[in-house]
Amino acid sequence: MRYVVIMAGGSGKRLWPLSRQGEPKQLLPLFDGQSLLQLAYQRVLQAVGPEQVLVCTGAAYADVVLEQLPGLAPENLLGEPEGRDSLNAVAWPAAVLARRDPDAVVAMVTADQLINPVDTFADALAAGFRLATDIPDVLVTFGVLPTSPHTGYGYLARGADIDGYGTASWVTEFKEKPDQATAQAYLASGGYWWNAGMFVWRARTLLDQLAVLLPQTHTKVLQLAEQPERLAEIYPQLLKTSVDYAVMEPVARGEGSARVAAIALDIDWADVGSFAALRAVLPQDPAGNAVVGPVVVRDSTGNLLVNTDHGSVLAVAGAQDLVVVRTPEATLAATLAASQQIKELAEQVADQVSPELA
Amino acid sequence: MRYVVIMAGGSGKRLWPLSRQGEPKQLLPLFDGQSLLQLAYQRVLQAVGPEQVLVCTGAAYADVVLEQLPGLAPENLLGEPEGRDSLNAVAWPAAVLARRDPDAVVAMVTADQLINPVDTFADALAAGFRLATDIPDVLVTFGVLPTSPHTGYGYLARGADIDGYGTASWVTEFKEKPDQATAQAYLASGGYWWNAGMFVWRARTLLDQLAVLLPQTHTKVLQLAEQPERLAEIYPQLLKTSVDYAVMEPVARGEGSARVAAIALDIDWADVGSFAALRAVLPQDPAGNAVVGPVVVRDSTGNLLVNTDHGSVLAVAGAQDLVVVRTPEATLAATLAASQQIKELAEQVADQVSPELA
Repeated sequence: MRYVVIMAGGSGKRLWPLSRQGEPKQLLPLFDGQSLLQLAYQRVLQAVGPEQVLVCTGAAYADVVLEQLPGLAPENLLGEPEGRDSLNAVAWPAAVLARRDPDAVVAMVTADQLINPVDTFADALAAGFRLATDIPDVLVTFGVLPTSPHTGYGYLARGADIDGYGTASWVTEFKEKPDQATAQAYLASGGYWWNAGMFVWRARTLLDQLAVLLPQTHTKVLQLAEQPERLAEIYPQLLKTSVDYAVMEPVARGEGSARVAAIALDIDWADVGSFAALRAVLPQDPAGNAVVGPVVVRDSTGNLLVNTDHGSVLAVAGAQDLVVVRTPEATLAATLAASQQIKELAEQVADQVSPELA
Repeated sequence: MRYVVIMAGGSGKRLWPLSRQGEPKQLLPLFDGQSLLQLAYQRVLQAVGPEQVLVCTGAAYADVVLEQLPGLAPENLLGEPEGRDSLNAVAWPAAVLARRDPDAVVAMVTADQLINPVDTFADALAAGFRLATDIPDVLVTFGVLPTSPHTGYGYLARGADIDGYGTASWVTEFKEKPDQATAQAYLASGGYWWNAGMFVWRARTLLDQLAVLLPQTHTKVLQLAEQPERLAEIYPQLLKTSVDYAVMEPVARGEGSARVAAIALDIDWADVGSFAALRAVLPQDPAGNAVVGPVVVRDSTGNLLVNTDHGSVLAVAGAQDLVVVRTPEATLAATLAASQQIKELAEQVADQVSPELA
């Protein structure tokens, strides 16, 4: 049986005060009242039924997630007692699903980006499922066709083509975030894709790699699946590392018992990891203002204006290229250029006013 | 006996959302936690005892005023059921005090400005009291020595000097707000002072002028003093006009039974009628930011940053020459230049979101 796990782990520091320390930005209802998580959920329902969709997120956000996704069964919500990086956000669901269904084929998808067109994504996901079902011992990743020499993404080095699964290749190497010159060279060569951080594999195949590469993690996630009541005890003991470091890179180098394949994702892939990025993906008025919530604007251009404080108003005049955000607890006013410093600003808030506001 | 009436009538449209429609800006605790009303109260206690201080304000603000001025006797708070312009804010107290004390000499002072030095103001007020006590049938005004050709103030044309009351003169004419060229000429001539909108007179003398110039107003304010229970019925019937139009201008022209004198006020007279003006009078950090309340600032210069929403934070980065205000109901973000449009912006809020927020 096919399953999809949506990874909605927390990190909203660069969107403070919209999201707070450790709060997943994927839960913010910024897109016509929908959150990135809700958009991701709708996307994956093209591939599997609602009973086969799981969400892995912080335990603290379980209620919000179940509220946003009324179709999600509570037993399909995997709430991490604390964030232990991406390795455990894929290893724990693999163990849980392998116990429910020894033949489980699992897609791990992110909810960090706006994805367009959705049909192209669904086709690629279907190809990933077929590839992981047809070929034994394969870890399938997805590669976004790069449109710029982006230094903020990891890259996949493509080997031989694989016929019959859309545009697919074997992956010879994982490359970490490159410098500008290297990114330029990757883009020019045509031999590299952006690492989308999404995967499809048989649950069993991933666990087999862990058995070889990280036997302790393997043992512990199997324990978690058998004894879910020990979650709060065992989860914090898991090695905190990324799935790329711990599994994908060594397996691509031949250190596991599987191979790594990649399916091309020919999509617009809009990260919303900063206010400037968020403004770019939201609809804009003729003056270039992206507006969410009760906001009144006068003689202002190029701003991102967000008000999530029910019953209040945000009013802006003469503003240019600003981000102004009002939440129940905080107001942020910054130039979009200065919004790079939001993490530091939130730390100042913690130091100078109250850690609870940061 | 001497009395001082502090006029704290409402008009806070240009400081929205700090003050709302009809809310007196004089009640905002912006100056080291003190309001303009509290500062005005402390100033006049140099001239009279607390039992001789009255406050005339909107009835809706009675509780806030009594809270801010614990020394004010409740019977000394005159709460207007609605604003009826400055004529009635001086005529009603005159009738009330004349009934309490037929020899009442009354100073009418504003709470709109920051005044420095306070001692110079106290000296001028004392001179005003002496002049109004010594000379029969005189209406005493105060003239601020102009430091610029300000087109936002009315002017007093000075006639012959009056010896013995500081720098004092008879007033030959009241001039309404002039255009730039006229204001330049006034400043150059040395014969004009800014009309401070403050007065000293015998209550009886003001009422005598009303008897001649506006007999109906005279009758009605006497009724109000005799039958305070009819306030809600009578007050809204009072002619809505300014004391300058109705009394000072005609009396200076010889149409009353008194003369008009002016005492020089050689003070720094800082209006706080706009955000730009408010920023100028508040203490500033080395980067020129004026900050009130829980605010965190990063790489920002020349801003006015005010947070009156208890328990929240206002955080600002990369901002220049902005006014950012957070209240429990609203956030304003505007350039200081655009803060001229605040009234219009508040009207937009009323139209587009809710009249209750404007």
